[in-house]
Amino acid sequence: MSKMPDLIRNVPFDEITLGQTASLQRTLTWRDLELFALVSGDVNPMHLDPEFAATTRFHHLIAHGMWGGALISALLGTRLPGPGTIYLSQELKFLRPVSLGDTVTATVCVIELEPEHRRVVLDCRCTDQEGNEVIAGRALVIAPSEKLVREAPHLPEVTLVPEGPSHGAC
Amino acid sequence: MSKMPDLIRNVPFDEITLGQTASLQRTLTWRDLELFALVSGDVNPMHLDPEFAATTRFHHLIAHGMWGGALISALLGTRLPGPGTIYLSQELKFLRPVSLGDTVTATVCVIELEPEHRRVVLDCRCTDQEGNEVIAGRALVIAPSEKLVREAPHLPEVTLVPEGPSHGAC
Repeated sequence: MSKMPDLIRNVPFDEITLGQTASLQRTLTWRDLELFALVSGDVNPMHLDPEFAATTRFHHLIAHGMWGGALISALLGTRLPGPGTIYLSQELKFLRPVSLGDTVTATVCVIELEPEHRRVVLDCRCTDQEGNEVIAGRALVIAPSEKLVREAPHLPEVTLVPEGPSHGAC
Repeated sequence: MSKMPDLIRNVPFDEITLGQTASLQRTLTWRDLELFALVSGDVNPMHLDPEFAATTRFHHLIAHGMWGGALISALLGTRLPGPGTIYLSQELKFLRPVSLGDTVTATVCVIELEPEHRRVVLDCRCTDQEGNEVIAGRALVIAPSEKLVREAPHLPEVTLVPEGPSHGAC
C-alpha cells in the first residue's frame, strides 16, 4: 500500500513569534556512531571502540559532541524556520556526554527577532532522558521570506557491512 | 595482502605549543549529503533535492553547514589534541556555502593554553579549493594528559540503497 508522502514545511519570518519552539527526539544507536564517524572522518576510539571507551573518564561509548549539534541544525533546517533558512552562526557548549542508548531531545526557542534583515536568534538545547542538559547554545539565522510546503526528500536505506580484519580504517 | 593498520595518536597537553596546527581535506560528495541527512535527520531539500536547490539563492545543492563543523570536530578528536580530548565548546560562523564537489580544508590552530586545567583554545577554519573561507570559529577543549598511540577503529563499508517511490522519508 502506498504511504502518504511526508511533508516538510517552513515558518517564514512573518509567522515567527518570540518564544516559539520546535523539538525533535533521537535515541543514540551504534549505527549513529558509525555513520557520524563515516561522514566526519572522526574515528576517535571514544566513539567506536568499547574496550578503549572503558578506560576513559566516561567508562563507555559516547556520542560525537557534534552529533547533538547536527540535531540542532536539523531542527533549524527542517522545522523552525525550516527550508530556505540561511544558517549564519552557532555556539555550542557540550555540558555532559551522551551515551549509547540515551534519548536526546533537541529544542530550539526563538529569543530575538530582527525584522530588518529577517534575522532570528534561537536558544538551542539538548537534554537526555533524565532531563539533564547535555548541550546548550545559540543560533543566528536568516529566516525565509516565503512559505514553503514540500514533499520531504527520500533518503536511501543504509546498510553497514563490517570491514574485514585485513583492511585499514576508511 | 594484509595492509598495515592505520594508527591514531594524540598530542597530550605537555606537547602542545602555541601556533601548532592540524588540517584535513574532504571533497563533498553526494554520499556525504545523504549520510549527513541520515545521521542528523536534516532532510532540508537545499541539501538533497537538486530541483528545489535550483530555486534557492545558491542555485545548487549545498552541504549541511554542520558538515563543516563535523570536520572541525574530527580534527580535534583524532589529531589535535586527539583521543582523550574533552570537547567543551565550539563557535561556528557559516560564511559561504559549500557546494557538491567542493574540496574543503579544515584547519585548527592553537591560540591559547591554560596549563592549570589543560585547557586549549583553537582557532578553527574551513576553506574551499579557491581559498575562500567557508567557516570560521573557535573551540575550547581539555587536552589529554597522557600520550596515546592506537590502531584506528575499523569503520564498516556503507551501502546506500535508493528508496522505492512508495516509501516515505526516514
